[in-house]
Amino acid sequence: MSEKSYVKSPQNAVNRLRNRANYDYETIHNIVNSTAVLHVSFVPSSEDPFPVVLPMIGQMGTFALPSSTDLDQPLDLYLHGAIASRIMKLSQNAVDRGEEGFPLCVAATKVDGYVLALTPFHHSYNFRSAVVHGYAHVVADPDEKMWALELITNKIVPERWQNTRTPPNKVEMQSTHILKMKVSSGSAKLRWGVPNNDRGDLKNPDVLANYWAGVVPMWETFGEPISSAHNQAPVPKYLSGYLEEARRENEAVAMEASKEQE
Amino acid sequence: MSEKSYVKSPQNAVNRLRNRANYDYETIHNIVNSTAVLHVSFVPSSEDPFPVVLPMIGQMGTFALPSSTDLDQPLDLYLHGAIASRIMKLSQNAVDRGEEGFPLCVAATKVDGYVLALTPFHHSYNFRSAVVHGYAHVVADPDEKMWALELITNKIVPERWQNTRTPPNKVEMQSTHILKMKVSSGSAKLRWGVPNNDRGDLKNPDVLANYWAGVVPMWETFGEPISSAHNQAPVPKYLSGYLEEARRENEAVAMEASKEQE
Repeated sequence: MSEKSYVKSPQNAVNRLRNRANYDYETIHNIVNSTAVLHVSFVPSSEDPFPVVLPMIGQMGTFALPSSTDLDQPLDLYLHGAIASRIMKLSQNAVDRGEEGFPLCVAATKVDGYVLALTPFHHSYNFRSAVVHGYAHVVADPDEKMWALELITNKIVPERWQNTRTPPNKVEMQSTHILKMKVSSGSAKLRWGVPNNDRGDLKNPDVLANYWAGVVPMWETFGEPISSAHNQAPVPKYLSGYLEEARRENEAVAMEASKEQE
Repeated sequence: MSEKSYVKSPQNAVNRLRNRANYDYETIHNIVNSTAVLHVSFVPSSEDPFPVVLPMIGQMGTFALPSSTDLDQPLDLYLHGAIASRIMKLSQNAVDRGEEGFPLCVAATKVDGYVLALTPFHHSYNFRSAVVHGYAHVVADPDEKMWALELITNKIVPERWQNTRTPPNKVEMQSTHILKMKVSSGSAKLRWGVPNNDRGDLKNPDVLANYWAGVVPMWETFGEPISSAHNQAPVPKYLSGYLEEARRENEAVAMEASKEQE
Protein backbone atom coordinates (compact mmCIF):
# COMPACT_ATOMS: atom_id res chain seq x y z
CA MET A 1 0.00 0.00 0.00
CA SER A 2 1.45 3.36 -1.01
CA GLU A 3 1.07 6.58 0.97
CA LYS A 4 -1.26 7.76 -1.76
CA SER A 5 -4.07 5.41 -0.89
CA TYR A 6 -7.12 4.94 1.30
CA VAL A 7 -6.47 3.40 4.70
CA LYS A 8 -7.75 -0.15 4.91
CA SER A 9 -10.53 -0.55 7.47
CA PRO A 10 -13.41 -2.95 8.10
CA GLN A 11 -15.56 -0.71 5.89
CA ASN A 12 -13.50 -0.92 2.72
CA ALA A 13 -11.45 -4.09 3.20
CA VAL A 14 -11.87 -6.50 0.31
CA ASN A 15 -12.24 -9.87 2.01
CA ARG A 16 -12.46 -12.15 -1.01
CA LEU A 17 -9.85 -12.46 -3.78
CA ARG A 18 -7.51 -10.02 -2.09
CA ASN A 19 -5.00 -10.16 -4.95
CA ARG A 20 -7.54 -8.26 -7.03
CA ALA A 21 -7.92 -5.51 -4.43
CA ASN A 22 -6.49 -2.04 -4.75
CA TYR A 23 -6.65 0.98 -2.43
CA ASP A 24 -4.72 3.58 -4.46
CA TYR A 25 -6.25 7.01 -4.87
CA GLU A 26 -5.35 7.16 -8.54
CA THR A 27 -6.84 3.76 -9.44
CA ILE A 28 -10.07 4.38 -7.54
CA HIS A 29 -10.58 7.97 -8.68
CA ASN A 30 -9.83 7.02 -12.28
CA ILE A 31 -12.53 4.32 -12.26
CA VAL A 32 -15.11 6.72 -10.79
CA ASN A 33 -14.28 9.50 -13.25
CA SER A 34 -14.37 7.28 -16.32
CA THR A 35 -17.71 5.64 -15.43
CA ALA A 36 -20.69 7.31 -17.13
CA VAL A 37 -23.22 6.29 -14.46
CA LEU A 38 -22.43 5.86 -10.76
CA HIS A 39 -24.70 3.75 -8.57
CA VAL A 40 -25.40 5.65 -5.36
CA SER A 41 -26.97 3.87 -2.42
CA PHE A 42 -28.43 5.16 0.83
CA VAL A 43 -30.78 4.12 3.62
CA PRO A 44 -33.96 6.22 3.32
CA SER A 45 -35.08 5.66 6.91
CA SER A 46 -34.18 3.48 9.85
CA GLU A 47 -37.65 1.90 9.71
CA ASP A 48 -37.29 0.77 6.10
CA PRO A 49 -35.31 -2.49 5.72
CA PHE A 50 -34.57 -1.66 2.07
CA PRO A 51 -31.77 0.61 0.94
CA VAL A 52 -32.17 2.64 -2.25
CA VAL A 53 -29.77 2.50 -5.19
CA LEU A 54 -29.90 5.20 -7.85
CA PRO A 55 -28.02 5.89 -11.08
CA MET A 56 -26.39 9.33 -10.89
CA ILE A 57 -23.72 11.36 -12.68
CA GLY A 58 -20.72 12.37 -10.61
CA GLN A 59 -17.07 13.29 -10.73
CA MET A 60 -14.21 13.48 -8.25
CA GLY A 61 -12.26 16.69 -7.72
CA THR A 62 -11.13 19.15 -5.10
CA PHE A 63 -12.32 22.74 -4.88
CA ALA A 64 -9.18 23.51 -2.86
CA LEU A 65 -7.21 23.00 -6.09
CA PRO A 66 -9.92 23.83 -8.62
CA SER A 67 -7.85 23.40 -11.79
CA SER A 68 -5.96 20.30 -10.63
CA THR A 69 -6.46 17.15 -12.68
CA ASP A 70 -4.22 15.07 -10.40
CA LEU A 71 -6.21 12.02 -9.29
CA ASP A 72 -3.48 10.76 -6.97
CA GLN A 73 -4.58 12.83 -3.97
CA PRO A 74 -7.56 12.98 -1.59
CA LEU A 75 -10.62 14.16 -3.54
CA ASP A 76 -14.32 14.76 -2.93
CA LEU A 77 -17.10 13.23 -4.98
CA TYR A 78 -19.55 15.70 -6.56
CA LEU A 79 -22.95 14.33 -7.61
CA HIS A 80 -25.51 16.09 -9.76
CA GLY A 81 -29.24 16.01 -9.11
CA ALA A 82 -32.53 17.84 -9.19
CA ILE A 83 -33.49 19.92 -6.20
CA ALA A 84 -36.70 17.88 -5.72
CA SER A 85 -35.01 14.47 -5.56
CA ARG A 86 -35.21 12.47 -2.35
CA ILE A 87 -31.45 12.15 -1.90
CA MET A 88 -31.11 15.95 -1.90
CA LYS A 89 -33.85 16.38 0.70
CA LEU A 90 -32.44 13.63 2.94
CA SER A 91 -28.95 15.13 2.69
CA GLN A 92 -30.27 18.55 3.62
CA ASN A 93 -32.24 17.05 6.54
CA ALA A 94 -29.12 15.33 7.90
CA VAL A 95 -27.20 18.62 7.88
CA ASP A 96 -30.18 20.44 9.43
CA ARG A 97 -30.10 17.90 12.28
CA GLY A 98 -26.46 18.85 12.88
CA GLU A 99 -25.05 15.64 11.46
CA GLU A 100 -21.87 15.36 9.44
CA GLY A 101 -23.88 14.62 6.32
CA PHE A 102 -25.92 11.86 4.71
CA PRO A 103 -24.16 8.46 4.55
CA LEU A 104 -23.72 7.23 0.97
CA CYS A 105 -22.06 4.26 -0.66
CA VAL A 106 -21.19 4.76 -4.33
CA ALA A 107 -20.09 2.14 -6.85
CA ALA A 108 -18.51 2.55 -10.28
CA THR A 109 -18.02 -0.49 -12.51
CA LYS A 110 -16.46 -0.93 -15.97
CA VAL A 111 -16.60 -4.25 -17.81
CA ASP A 112 -13.55 -4.88 -20.03
CA GLY A 113 -14.45 -8.32 -21.34
CA TYR A 114 -16.14 -11.69 -21.00
CA VAL A 115 -13.84 -14.38 -19.61
CA LEU A 116 -15.05 -17.70 -21.04
CA ALA A 117 -13.43 -20.69 -19.34
CA LEU A 118 -13.78 -24.41 -20.07
CA THR A 119 -16.30 -24.79 -17.23
CA PRO A 120 -18.97 -22.30 -16.08
CA PHE A 121 -17.40 -22.11 -12.62
CA HIS A 122 -14.35 -20.26 -13.99
CA HIS A 123 -16.37 -17.87 -16.14
CA SER A 124 -15.84 -14.25 -15.16
CA TYR A 125 -15.63 -10.70 -16.42
CA ASN A 126 -12.54 -8.64 -16.85
CA PHE A 127 -13.56 -5.56 -14.92
CA ARG A 128 -12.57 -2.53 -12.87
CA SER A 129 -14.84 -1.61 -9.99
CA ALA A 130 -14.56 1.02 -7.28
CA VAL A 131 -16.61 1.64 -4.17
CA VAL A 132 -16.41 4.84 -2.09
CA HIS A 133 -18.18 5.68 1.16
CA GLY A 134 -18.71 9.07 2.71
CA TYR A 135 -20.99 11.73 4.13
CA ALA A 136 -22.77 14.00 1.66
CA HIS A 137 -24.20 17.50 1.90
CA VAL A 138 -25.75 19.92 -0.54
CA VAL A 139 -23.17 22.47 -1.75
CA ALA A 140 -24.20 25.94 -0.52
CA ASP A 141 -21.26 28.05 -1.72
CA PRO A 142 -22.26 29.46 -5.16
CA ASP A 143 -18.66 29.48 -6.44
CA GLU A 144 -18.12 25.85 -5.49
CA LYS A 145 -21.47 24.91 -7.02
CA MET A 146 -20.61 26.62 -10.31
CA TRP A 147 -17.17 24.96 -10.34
CA ALA A 148 -18.73 21.54 -9.67
CA LEU A 149 -21.28 22.00 -12.48
CA GLU A 150 -18.39 22.68 -14.85
CA LEU A 151 -16.48 19.65 -13.49
CA ILE A 152 -19.46 17.34 -14.09
CA THR A 153 -20.35 18.81 -17.52
CA ASN A 154 -16.78 18.35 -18.70
CA LYS A 155 -16.82 14.76 -17.45
CA ILE A 156 -19.23 13.93 -20.27
CA VAL A 157 -17.25 15.72 -22.98
CA PRO A 158 -14.06 17.67 -22.16
CA GLU A 159 -14.34 21.42 -22.92
CA ARG A 160 -18.12 21.12 -23.17
CA TRP A 161 -18.80 23.79 -20.51
CA GLN A 162 -16.83 26.43 -22.43
CA ASN A 163 -18.75 25.50 -25.57
CA THR A 164 -22.28 25.95 -24.26
CA ARG A 165 -24.39 28.90 -23.17
CA THR A 166 -22.89 29.52 -19.72
CA PRO A 167 -23.15 30.48 -16.96
CA PRO A 168 -26.52 28.88 -16.17
CA ASN A 169 -29.23 31.42 -15.45
CA LYS A 170 -30.85 31.91 -12.06
CA VAL A 171 -33.73 29.46 -12.65
CA GLU A 172 -31.31 26.79 -13.89
CA MET A 173 -29.07 27.24 -10.85
CA GLN A 174 -32.04 27.07 -8.48
CA SER A 175 -33.38 23.86 -10.03
CA THR A 176 -30.09 22.01 -9.71
CA HIS A 177 -28.34 20.75 -6.61
CA ILE A 178 -24.83 19.47 -6.24
CA LEU A 179 -24.08 16.93 -3.53
CA LYS A 180 -20.56 16.89 -2.16
CA MET A 181 -19.49 13.61 -0.59
CA LYS A 182 -16.42 13.74 1.62
CA VAL A 183 -14.89 10.35 1.00
CA SER A 184 -14.15 8.42 4.18
CA SER A 185 -13.02 5.19 2.52
CA GLY A 186 -12.49 3.71 -0.90
CA SER A 187 -11.47 0.47 -2.51
CA ALA A 188 -11.21 -1.05 -5.96
CA LYS A 189 -11.31 -4.54 -7.37
CA LEU A 190 -9.84 -5.42 -10.74
CA ARG A 191 -9.65 -8.55 -12.86
CA TRP A 192 -7.81 -8.87 -16.12
CA GLY A 193 -6.20 -11.53 -18.25
CA VAL A 194 -7.05 -14.92 -19.67
CA PRO A 195 -9.42 -17.50 -18.13
CA ASN A 196 -8.37 -19.68 -15.23
CA ASN A 197 -8.99 -23.33 -15.92
CA ASP A 198 -8.86 -26.52 -13.89
CA ARG A 199 -5.76 -28.63 -14.36
CA GLY A 200 -8.04 -31.60 -14.89
CA ASP A 201 -9.85 -29.87 -17.75
CA LEU A 202 -6.57 -28.79 -19.36
CA LYS A 203 -5.34 -32.40 -19.33
CA ASN A 204 -8.59 -33.81 -20.69
CA PRO A 205 -8.36 -34.21 -24.50
CA ASP A 206 -12.15 -34.48 -24.83
CA VAL A 207 -12.71 -31.19 -23.01
CA LEU A 208 -10.02 -29.47 -25.06
CA ALA A 209 -11.38 -30.86 -28.32
CA ASN A 210 -15.00 -29.92 -27.63
CA TYR A 211 -14.97 -26.61 -25.75
CA TRP A 212 -13.54 -23.24 -26.66
CA ALA A 213 -12.08 -20.91 -24.00
CA GLY A 214 -10.80 -17.36 -24.23
CA VAL A 215 -11.64 -13.71 -23.73
CA VAL A 216 -14.10 -11.46 -25.57
CA PRO A 217 -12.96 -7.82 -25.21
CA MET A 218 -15.84 -5.42 -24.50
CA TRP A 219 -15.94 -1.63 -24.35
CA GLU A 220 -18.15 1.44 -24.70
CA THR A 221 -18.10 3.02 -28.12
CA PHE A 222 -19.71 6.04 -29.76
CA GLY A 223 -21.42 6.73 -33.06
CA GLU A 224 -21.09 9.91 -35.08
CA PRO A 225 -22.75 12.89 -33.36
CA ILE A 226 -26.29 13.57 -34.62
CA SER A 227 -26.95 17.32 -34.90
CA SER A 228 -30.18 18.84 -33.60
CA ALA A 229 -32.46 20.30 -36.26
CA HIS A 230 -31.57 23.90 -35.38
CA ASN A 231 -27.81 23.49 -35.77
CA GLN A 232 -26.18 25.69 -38.35
CA ALA A 233 -22.59 24.73 -37.63
CA PRO A 234 -20.90 21.39 -38.33
CA VAL A 235 -19.91 19.01 -35.52
CA PRO A 236 -17.20 20.85 -33.57
CA LYS A 237 -13.58 19.64 -33.49
CA TYR A 238 -13.34 19.36 -29.68
CA LEU A 239 -16.22 16.86 -29.82
CA SER A 240 -15.23 14.77 -32.83
CA GLY A 241 -11.62 14.70 -31.65
CA TYR A 242 -12.62 13.55 -28.17
CA LEU A 243 -14.93 10.82 -29.50
CA GLU A 244 -12.22 9.51 -31.81
CA GLU A 245 -9.78 9.37 -28.91
CA ALA A 246 -12.34 7.77 -26.55
CA ARG A 247 -13.26 5.03 -29.05
CA ARG A 248 -9.58 4.19 -29.57
CA GLU A 249 -8.67 4.41 -25.88
CA ASN A 250 -11.66 2.32 -24.68
CA GLU A 251 -10.84 -0.40 -27.21
CA ALA A 252 -7.14 -0.33 -26.29
CA VAL A 253 -7.93 -0.79 -22.58
CA ALA A 254 -10.21 -3.78 -23.29
CA MET A 255 -7.62 -5.37 -25.59
CA GLU A 256 -4.83 -4.86 -23.06
CA ALA A 257 -6.99 -6.44 -20.31
CA SER A 258 -7.59 -9.49 -22.51
CA LYS A 259 -3.92 -10.49 -22.68
CA GLU A 260 -2.12 -12.92 -20.43
CA GLN A 261 -0.49 -11.05 -17.57
CA GLU A 262 2.41 -12.09 -15.37
CA MET B 1 -50.58 0.68 -16.65
CA SER B 2 -51.21 -2.78 -18.09
CA GLU B 3 -52.09 -5.86 -16.10
CA LYS B 4 -48.62 -7.12 -16.89
CA SER B 5 -46.85 -4.68 -14.66
CA TYR B 6 -45.68 -4.06 -11.12
CA VAL B 7 -48.16 -2.39 -8.83
CA LYS B 8 -47.22 1.19 -8.09
CA SER B 9 -46.48 1.75 -4.39
CA PRO B 10 -44.49 4.23 -2.31
CA GLN B 11 -41.47 1.93 -2.70
CA ASN B 12 -41.26 1.95 -6.50
CA ALA B 13 -43.14 5.10 -7.46
CA VAL B 14 -41.06 7.37 -9.66
CA ASN B 15 -41.69 10.82 -8.23
CA ARG B 16 -39.73 12.98 -10.62
CA LEU B 17 -40.19 13.12 -14.41
CA ARG B 18 -43.09 10.72 -14.31
CA ASN B 19 -43.44 10.70 -18.10
CA ARG B 20 -40.20 8.75 -18.20
CA ALA B 21 -41.47 6.12 -15.76
CA ASN B 22 -42.49 2.60 -16.69
CA TYR B 23 -43.79 -0.29 -14.57
CA ASP B 24 -44.18 -3.02 -17.23
CA TYR B 25 -42.74 -6.44 -16.49
CA GLU B 26 -41.30 -6.77 -19.96
CA THR B 27 -39.52 -3.39 -19.98
CA ILE B 28 -38.05 -3.87 -16.50
CA HIS B 29 -37.01 -7.51 -16.95
CA ASN B 30 -35.47 -6.73 -20.32
CA ILE B 31 -33.28 -3.99 -18.85
CA VAL B 32 -32.12 -6.27 -16.02
CA ASN B 33 -31.36 -9.18 -18.35
CA SER B 34 -29.43 -7.10 -20.88
CA THR B 35 -27.26 -5.37 -18.27
CA ALA B 36 -23.88 -7.07 -17.79
CA VAL B 37 -23.40 -5.88 -14.20
CA LEU B 38 -26.21 -5.30 -11.71
CA HIS B 39 -25.65 -3.06 -8.70
CA VAL B 40 -27.00 -4.78 -5.61
CA SER B 41 -27.45 -2.86 -2.40
CA PHE B 42 -28.23 -3.95 1.14
CA VAL B 43 -27.96 -2.74 4.73
CA PRO B 44 -25.26 -4.82 6.47
CA SER B 45 -26.49 -4.06 9.99
CA SER B 46 -28.92 -1.76 11.71
CA GLU B 47 -26.00 -0.14 13.58
CA ASP B 48 -24.13 0.81 10.41
CA PRO B 49 -25.45 4.02 8.78
CA PHE B 50 -23.91 3.00 5.44
CA PRO B 51 -25.54 0.63 2.98
CA VAL B 52 -23.34 -1.53 0.75
CA VAL B 53 -23.54 -1.56 -3.04
CA LEU B 54 -21.90 -4.39 -4.97
CA PRO B 55 -21.51 -5.24 -8.65
CA MET B 56 -23.00 -8.72 -9.31
CA ILE B 57 -24.12 -10.88 -12.22
CA GLY B 58 -27.78 -11.84 -12.29
CA GLN B 59 -30.66 -12.80 -14.51
CA MET B 60 -34.44 -12.93 -14.20
CA GLY B 61 -36.36 -16.14 -14.77
CA THR B 62 -38.87 -18.49 -13.20
CA PHE B 63 -38.10 -22.05 -12.15
CA ALA B 64 -41.84 -22.77 -12.35
CA LEU B 65 -41.49 -22.43 -16.14
CA PRO B 66 -37.83 -23.35 -16.53
CA SER B 67 -37.61 -23.09 -20.32
CA SER B 68 -39.77 -19.98 -20.66
CA THR B 69 -38.12 -16.91 -22.16
CA ASP B 70 -41.24 -14.77 -21.76
CA LEU B 71 -40.25 -11.63 -19.84
CA ASP B 72 -43.81 -10.32 -19.64
CA GLN B 73 -44.74 -12.23 -16.47
CA PRO B 74 -43.75 -12.23 -12.78
CA LEU B 75 -40.13 -13.43 -12.49
CA ASP B 76 -37.52 -13.95 -9.79
CA LEU B 77 -34.04 -12.48 -9.86
CA TYR B 78 -31.17 -14.98 -9.55
CA LEU B 79 -27.79 -13.60 -8.46
CA HIS B 80 -24.49 -15.42 -8.59
CA GLY B 81 -21.87 -15.26 -5.86
CA ALA B 82 -19.19 -17.04 -3.90
CA ILE B 83 -20.21 -18.97 -0.82
CA ALA B 84 -17.88 -16.87 1.35
CA SER B 85 -19.28 -13.49 0.35
CA ARG B 86 -20.99 -11.33 2.93
CA ILE B 87 -24.27 -11.03 1.06
CA MET B 88 -24.64 -14.83 1.04
CA LYS B 89 -23.95 -15.09 4.78
CA LEU B 90 -26.37 -12.27 5.61
CA SER B 91 -29.07 -13.82 3.42
CA GLN B 92 -28.60 -17.19 5.10
CA ASN B 93 -28.72 -15.53 8.54
CA ALA B 94 -32.01 -13.79 7.71
CA VAL B 95 -33.60 -17.10 6.72
CA ASP B 96 -32.14 -18.82 9.81
CA ARG B 97 -33.84 -16.15 11.93
CA GLY B 98 -37.15 -17.11 10.33
CA GLU B 99 -37.41 -13.98 8.19
CA GLU B 100 -38.77 -13.85 4.66
CA GLY B 101 -35.28 -13.23 3.31
CA PHE B 102 -32.65 -10.52 3.10
CA PRO B 103 -33.92 -7.15 1.76
CA LEU B 104 -32.14 -6.10 -1.43
CA CYS B 105 -32.47 -3.23 -3.87
CA VAL B 106 -31.00 -3.92 -7.32
CA ALA B 107 -30.34 -1.43 -10.12
CA ALA B 108 -29.60 -2.03 -13.81
CA THR B 109 -28.62 0.89 -16.03
CA LYS B 110 -27.83 1.14 -19.75
CA VAL B 111 -26.57 4.38 -21.31
CA ASP B 112 -27.70 4.85 -24.93
CA GLY B 113 -26.15 8.23 -25.61
CA TYR B 114 -24.96 11.64 -24.49
CA VAL B 115 -27.56 14.36 -24.86
CA LEU B 116 -25.70 17.62 -25.45
CA ALA B 117 -27.96 20.66 -25.19
CA LEU B 118 -27.20 24.34 -25.74
CA THR B 119 -26.85 24.90 -22.00
CA PRO B 120 -25.40 22.50 -19.37
CA PHE B 121 -28.72 22.46 -17.50
CA HIS B 122 -30.40 20.51 -20.32
CA HIS B 123 -27.53 18.04 -20.74
CA SER B 124 -28.61 14.47 -20.09
CA TYR B 125 -28.08 10.87 -21.08
CA ASN B 126 -30.35 8.74 -23.15
CA PHE B 127 -30.71 5.76 -20.83
CA ARG B 128 -32.79 2.83 -19.65
CA SER B 129 -32.66 2.08 -15.93
CA ALA B 130 -34.54 -0.42 -13.81
CA VAL B 131 -34.74 -0.87 -10.04
CA VAL B 132 -36.19 -3.97 -8.35
CA HIS B 133 -36.70 -4.62 -4.64
CA GLY B 134 -37.24 -7.93 -2.90
CA TYR B 135 -36.27 -10.48 -0.30
CA ALA B 136 -33.42 -12.84 -1.12
CA HIS B 137 -32.47 -16.29 0.09
CA VAL B 138 -29.80 -18.81 -0.85
CA VAL B 139 -31.20 -21.45 -3.22
CA ALA B 140 -31.14 -24.84 -1.47
CA ASP B 141 -32.82 -27.07 -4.07
CA PRO B 142 -30.00 -28.62 -6.17
CA ASP B 143 -32.16 -28.75 -9.33
CA GLU B 144 -33.11 -25.11 -9.07
CA LYS B 145 -29.48 -24.17 -8.36
CA MET B 146 -28.25 -26.05 -11.43
CA TRP B 147 -30.98 -24.45 -13.56
CA ALA B 148 -30.07 -20.97 -12.27
CA LEU B 149 -26.36 -21.53 -13.01
CA GLU B 150 -27.31 -22.36 -16.59
CA LEU B 151 -29.59 -19.30 -16.78
CA ILE B 152 -26.80 -16.99 -15.60
CA THR B 153 -24.08 -18.59 -17.76
CA ASN B 154 -26.25 -18.24 -20.86
CA LYS B 155 -26.89 -14.59 -19.98
CA ILE B 156 -23.28 -13.87 -20.87
CA VAL B 157 -23.31 -15.81 -24.14
CA PRO B 158 -26.39 -17.77 -25.28
CA GLU B 159 -25.76 -21.55 -25.55
CA ARG B 160 -22.58 -21.19 -23.53
CA TRP B 161 -23.63 -23.72 -20.85
CA GLN B 162 -24.13 -26.48 -23.43
CA ASN B 163 -20.71 -25.67 -24.87
CA THR B 164 -18.63 -26.02 -21.70
CA ARG B 165 -17.63 -28.87 -19.45
CA THR B 166 -20.89 -29.36 -17.50
CA PRO B 167 -22.33 -30.19 -15.09
CA PRO B 168 -20.06 -28.49 -12.54
CA ASN B 169 -18.33 -30.95 -10.24
CA LYS B 170 -19.05 -31.25 -6.51
CA VAL B 171 -16.35 -28.79 -5.41
CA GLU B 172 -17.51 -26.22 -7.97
CA MET B 173 -21.12 -26.56 -6.83
CA GLN B 174 -20.14 -26.24 -3.17
CA SER B 175 -18.08 -23.08 -3.78
CA THR B 176 -20.91 -21.27 -5.56
CA HIS B 177 -24.13 -19.89 -4.16
CA ILE B 178 -27.17 -18.64 -6.00
CA LEU B 179 -29.32 -15.99 -4.39
CA LYS B 180 -32.99 -15.94 -5.37
CA MET B 181 -34.72 -12.62 -4.90
CA LYS B 182 -38.50 -12.68 -4.93
CA VAL B 183 -39.32 -9.36 -6.50
CA SER B 184 -41.77 -7.29 -4.47
CA SER B 185 -41.63 -4.16 -6.63
CA GLY B 186 -40.02 -2.84 -9.76
CA SER B 187 -39.84 0.30 -11.82
CA ALA B 188 -38.00 1.66 -14.82
CA LYS B 189 -37.01 5.07 -16.04
CA LEU B 190 -36.18 5.77 -19.68
CA ARG B 191 -35.03 8.80 -21.63
CA TRP B 192 -34.59 8.94 -25.38
CA GLY B 193 -34.58 11.47 -28.16
CA VAL B 194 -33.02 14.79 -28.95
CA PRO B 195 -31.97 17.49 -26.45
CA ASN B 196 -34.50 19.78 -24.84
CA ASN B 197 -33.55 23.41 -25.19
CA ASP B 198 -34.78 26.69 -23.77
CA ARG B 199 -36.97 28.70 -26.10
CA GLY B 200 -34.76 31.68 -25.32
CA ASP B 201 -31.65 29.85 -26.46
CA LEU B 202 -33.35 28.65 -29.64
CA LYS B 203 -34.29 32.23 -30.51
CA ASN B 204 -30.86 33.63 -29.75
CA PRO B 205 -28.76 33.87 -32.97
CA ASP B 206 -25.51 34.18 -30.99
CA VAL B 207 -26.20 30.98 -29.05
CA LEU B 208 -27.17 29.12 -32.21
CA ALA B 209 -24.13 30.38 -34.09
CA ASN B 210 -21.65 29.52 -31.36
CA TYR B 211 -22.83 26.31 -29.73
CA TRP B 212 -23.51 22.87 -31.13
CA ALA B 213 -26.29 20.63 -29.75
CA GLY B 214 -27.24 17.07 -30.53
CA VAL B 215 -26.91 13.46 -29.45
CA VAL B 216 -23.89 11.17 -29.37
CA PRO B 217 -25.08 7.53 -29.58
CA MET B 218 -23.21 5.21 -27.19
CA TRP B 219 -23.28 1.42 -26.83
CA GLU B 220 -21.32 -1.60 -25.67
CA THR B 221 -19.37 -3.35 -28.38
CA PHE B 222 -17.15 -6.42 -28.59
CA GLY B 223 -13.82 -7.23 -30.20
CA GLU B 224 -12.94 -10.50 -31.88
CA PRO B 225 -12.67 -13.37 -29.38
CA ILE B 226 -9.09 -14.07 -28.25
CA SER B 227 -8.45 -17.81 -27.90
CA SER B 228 -6.65 -19.21 -24.88
CA ALA B 229 -3.25 -20.75 -25.60
CA HIS B 230 -4.53 -24.32 -25.24
CA ASN B 231 -7.34 -24.01 -27.81
CA GLN B 232 -7.15 -26.35 -30.74
CA ALA B 233 -10.45 -25.39 -32.33
CA PRO B 234 -11.35 -22.12 -34.08
CA VAL B 235 -13.77 -19.63 -32.52
CA PRO B 236 -17.15 -21.42 -32.44
CA LYS B 237 -20.08 -20.26 -34.57
CA TYR B 238 -22.54 -19.81 -31.66
CA LEU B 239 -20.09 -17.29 -30.20
CA SER B 240 -19.06 -15.35 -33.32
CA GLY B 241 -22.68 -15.28 -34.50
CA TYR B 242 -23.92 -13.95 -31.17
CA LEU B 243 -21.24 -11.26 -31.00
CA GLU B 244 -22.02 -10.09 -34.51
CA GLU B 245 -25.71 -9.85 -33.63
CA ALA B 246 -25.01 -8.11 -30.29
CA ARG B 247 -22.74 -5.49 -31.89
CA ARG B 248 -25.38 -4.72 -34.52
CA GLU B 249 -28.31 -4.77 -32.10
CA ASN B 250 -26.57 -2.59 -29.46
CA GLU B 251 -25.70 -0.02 -32.11
CA ALA B 252 -29.24 -0.09 -33.54
CA VAL B 253 -30.79 0.56 -30.11
CA ALA B 254 -28.49 3.54 -29.49
CA MET B 255 -29.17 4.98 -32.95
CA GLU B 256 -32.92 4.56 -32.53
CA ALA B 257 -32.80 6.29 -29.12
CA SER B 258 -30.98 9.25 -30.69
CA LYS B 259 -33.80 10.19 -33.03
CA GLU B 260 -36.54 12.70 -32.44
CA GLN B 261 -39.62 10.94 -31.07
CA GLU B 262 -43.23 11.94 -31.29
